[in-house]
Amino acid sequence: MTRSAQGAKTLPGKYYTDQAIYELETRNIFSKKWLYVGRGGEIPRPGDYFLLETEGESIIILRDRNLKVRAFYNICRHRGTKLCEVATGKFGQTIQCIYHAWTYRLDGTLHGAPNMHEVASFEKSDYPLLQVASAEWEGCLFINLSDNPEPFEQAFAPLISKFSKWQMTELITVHRIVYEVAANWKLVFQNYSECYHCPSLHPALNRLTPYRNSSNDLMEGPFLGGPMHFAEDSDSMTMTGRVCAAPLAQLDEADLRLAYYYTVQPNMLLSLFPDYVMIHRVERDGPAKSRVVCDWLFDAQAAVKPDFDPSGAIEFWNITNQQDWQVSELSQLGVSSRAYQPGPYAELESMIAAWDREYLRTLKENE
Amino acid sequence: MTRSAQGAKTLPGKYYTDQAIYELETRNIFSKKWLYVGRGGEIPRPGDYFLLETEGESIIILRDRNLKVRAFYNICRHRGTKLCEVATGKFGQTIQCIYHAWTYRLDGTLHGAPNMHEVASFEKSDYPLLQVASAEWEGCLFINLSDNPEPFEQAFAPLISKFSKWQMTELITVHRIVYEVAANWKLVFQNYSECYHCPSLHPALNRLTPYRNSSNDLMEGPFLGGPMHFAEDSDSMTMTGRVCAAPLAQLDEADLRLAYYYTVQPNMLLSLFPDYVMIHRVERDGPAKSRVVCDWLFDAQAAVKPDFDPSGAIEFWNITNQQDWQVSELSQLGVSSRAYQPGPYAELESMIAAWDREYLRTLKENE
Amino acid sequence: MTRSAQGAKTLPGKYYTDQAIYELETRNIFSKKWLYVGRGGEIPRPGDYFLLETEGESIIILRDRNLKVRAFYNICRHRGTKLCEVATGKFGQTIQCIYHAWTYRLDGTLHGAPNMHEVASFEKSDYPLLQVASAEWEGCLFINLSDNPEPFEQAFAPLISKFSKWQMTELITVHRIVYEVAANWKLVFQNYSECYHCPSLHPALNRLTPYRNSSNDLMEGPFLGGPMHFAEDSDSMTMTGRVCAAPLAQLDEADLRLAYYYTVQPNMLLSLFPDYVMIHRVERDGPAKSRVVCDWLFDAQAAVKPDFDPSGAIEFWNITNQQDWQVSELSQLGVSSRAYQPGPYAELESMIAAWDREYLRTLKENE
Repeated sequence: MTRSAQGAKTLPGKYYTDQAIYELETRNIFSKKWLYVGRGGEIPRPGDYFLLETEGESIIILRDRNLKVRAFYNICRHRGTKLCEVATGKFGQTIQCIYHAWTYRLDGTLHGAPNMHEVASFEKSDYPLLQVASAEWEGCLFINLSDNPEPFEQAFAPLISKFSKWQMTELITVHRIVYEVAANWKLVFQNYSECYHCPSLHPALNRLTPYRNSSNDLMEGPFLGGPMHFAEDSDSMTMTGRVCAAPLAQLDEADLRLAYYYTVQPNMLLSLFPDYVMIHRVERDGPAKSRVVCDWLFDAQAAVKPDFDPSGAIEFWNITNQQDWQVSELSQLGVSSRAYQPGPYAELESMIAAWDREYLRTLKENE
Repeated sequence: MTRSAQGAKTLPGKYYTDQAIYELETRNIFSKKWLYVGRGGEIPRPGDYFLLETEGESIIILRDRNLKVRAFYNICRHRGTKLCEVATGKFGQTIQCIYHAWTYRLDGTLHGAPNMHEVASFEKSDYPLLQVASAEWEGCLFINLSDNPEPFEQAFAPLISKFSKWQMTELITVHRIVYEVAANWKLVFQNYSECYHCPSLHPALNRLTPYRNSSNDLMEGPFLGGPMHFAEDSDSMTMTGRVCAAPLAQLDEADLRLAYYYTVQPNMLLSLFPDYVMIHRVERDGPAKSRVVCDWLFDAQAAVKPDFDPSGAIEFWNITNQQDWQVSELSQLGVSSRAYQPGPYAELESMIAAWDREYLRTLKENE
Repeated sequence: MTRSAQGAKTLPGKYYTDQAIYELETRNIFSKKWLYVGRGGEIPRPGDYFLLETEGESIIILRDRNLKVRAFYNICRHRGTKLCEVATGKFGQTIQCIYHAWTYRLDGTLHGAPNMHEVASFEKSDYPLLQVASAEWEGCLFINLSDNPEPFEQAFAPLISKFSKWQMTELITVHRIVYEVAANWKLVFQNYSECYHCPSLHPALNRLTPYRNSSNDLMEGPFLGGPMHFAEDSDSMTMTGRVCAAPLAQLDEADLRLAYYYTVQPNMLLSLFPDYVMIHRVERDGPAKSRVVCDWLFDAQAAVKPDFDPSGAIEFWNITNQQDWQVSELSQLGVSSRAYQPGPYAELESMIAAWDREYLRTLKENE
């Protein structure tokens, strides 16, 4: 048996309610780790951008003239004015502030600053847009708010080539649902990290992948998870239990009998099935609220076929997601009580225990 | 003259606005004193329960198999999930958590915990529901959130047999109104503690019991108040000034000419009339807001008569209550001003002065 | 050239977001400086009053029997009850509290306090309404919340006779618009203090008074600003660029070619044109919100003429105001970012630099 909760208990209540802990997370986790922000396919051409509005910050994610993805704080360097208000769109040659008409090129350099030649000490090169580190991997975009980020390839080494068979760069987003969840972000991760709750909470899911059909291939660190085996009469996670598109071309025979689930600290849940991939992006919104953006990705070729119908996968997970948010919200209510005490993890919850350990390690480092 | 305000003044503004004072009240008053929570008649049979949702806590109040009232924090001991969401109802043999299907008996002991046998150190007896002390007196239910509560009979000694003539266990709740009041809970108690405001604010009430027709029989400590004499042409507090049900059977001749009013620290107002009893339960909701649950109780025999009509008592107090909440809200606005200074109590406000003294005594003890 | 930003930069982000800075402003600025509250014409007769509800305080501004303007905290001295709830009206001989019927004369002295004669130590003269210093200048009303205010004539010495040609006491308010702005109050002042943004944000305004047609005659201290010259084909700030009423009678020939703009620290913007005057009153509502009350004042004689039509002035500024609030709100969003850094002021922003200097001087004094 590969799993063991080793007598571990749930986290004390302050981790779910305390503003000071929340701010420590901001400094030591969300300002240091690579954050999943969306799919490269959302900004295919030069000038395409979307805004990431998260935790009180607004970040412009754009593709520049050289097709490189760049990320900038959405702030004019003159008076601090928010530059861009529209959530998604396409820039021309420059980004212009509506206040005093300062303009920036798509590489962030300051192009025009009317009347500033009158200020003797002013140099345009001193005032580029504030850039944020970015990376593109398997069609997924990441940013890092640190001034001195760990190189992406180093941070993501355990995952870099792990999912190449799914050819995720070829996948396109066919559906997105945004959920508001009245629960701390960690409760969402903890909920995803075990199937002990599947028999009682998700009977339909439990028929497709019985809760004990699970194992883990990443068992410590920022990336955790592994496969579950399908029951004999199932081959995907859908309303019917059957694939709703042709299996992805490069998968092995063995992969066709497995559903893979991984937590990617601190804001991504990656679920890979024979015929599609699902990604949850989890955003904090204060200690007691989260926003979860759930995308369903299918092979671009499959998605243009006339009989393509992903609704069985979407409905299946929309039902499951909502069941999960309900218990996460009930847990938020309970762990906020003055009376709450940490409870014992089951062996089936060993991945939560590992997730909590990594969380505490990361939270405390560099304090 | 039994009353004297002795030059006392109103409390400084911080007691009505300050979050730190509010939290000190939580620790030293609301976590230590017996709190009125409702009537035993709300849960007559085994398994009947209601939820008390107050101050961010959720408490299950239930009647167990032996007809004993019990109170438990509404929290699963496994992951802290809130167990029960429905405000009132009836449990079967057990209470089950929807997350991982842990079940508890009505005495709080853990009955089932699937898969936990795999955890070597796990003992069911370590994880009963967290119990809260409870008491039943005169048909009224109380809880105490302290780990080491003062025995109810000791705490309530001055009241234990004081109201036996009203046979309150025989009374049933015929009407309830819940009021949201934008005022600190203490302003509600202070308002109830004097009739100096009756001539100007409650002219109808003042005709039935002129404001100087008052005396007090409990004048210091956690229980304060006493009777007011009816005017000659009145015999109850109703729209007509006349009883709307037969007088309660055990009352003396003298009691038929009196209305009794008591503050029961920290959350109950008890008003006894010849033909009915009214109870206000006062809940804090932050320093500047309160919720007041007002119940009208009548004799069970009287209430089933075909011509029973309590509307004259309900309408009378609903009007009066709303007048009182209006001035309490105006006081909250004024005492929140930076310019507010404590003002002088009248002799007619001696019971507020006594209430404030007891409040300050309780607030500071064990700090 | 009279202006110079001298290498100054915008204020650090904490001045726009920090609750502690906000409270320091309360103590050192808004509780010490003279605050513009409205026009004397709003309360012409004895007993007329309006309430100033600002920053959690309620102040009664009234005209007493001797036609003197007085200001009082809207609080009964007995239990702190808010005395008056109606925003504007007319008192009779006294102001009465609805709670216990205490009454105050219009000079603030306590007239009646029922039953208080029973309290031996009670003296009516100890409990007048709490008075706030007030002043009337050019038809404008000011209050000062300090216990020991600087005399108004001394504080306003640089302005006292500066605008006498506009005969502002003769002007009446013909229109008022109240704006809620999701921006710190200082961003509103900073926006008003420069026309560098006019070409990009206000093209219509910039045609009437091109942005470089500006000079300043008050360049340091609590009052800052000066005139802008009209373009050749304009003579007022209206939709047509032409006056919408006869020019004010006492103006010089030169004044007819100028629009004057002044910031009056800490809550007034004063704009004077040949045919009308506009006053913005700026209220704080937390660090990130403001309320702006904008009044358009015209000569009382002009305003009664049958063909009087101020709509061209109102529409012009309503459009301009909304453009200004939009960029102020975008600036609030940007300067709230953890990444925001102070940016360089242009020479055209020298009045902001001066305003910031005076703000910081005032904020820090007496700390």
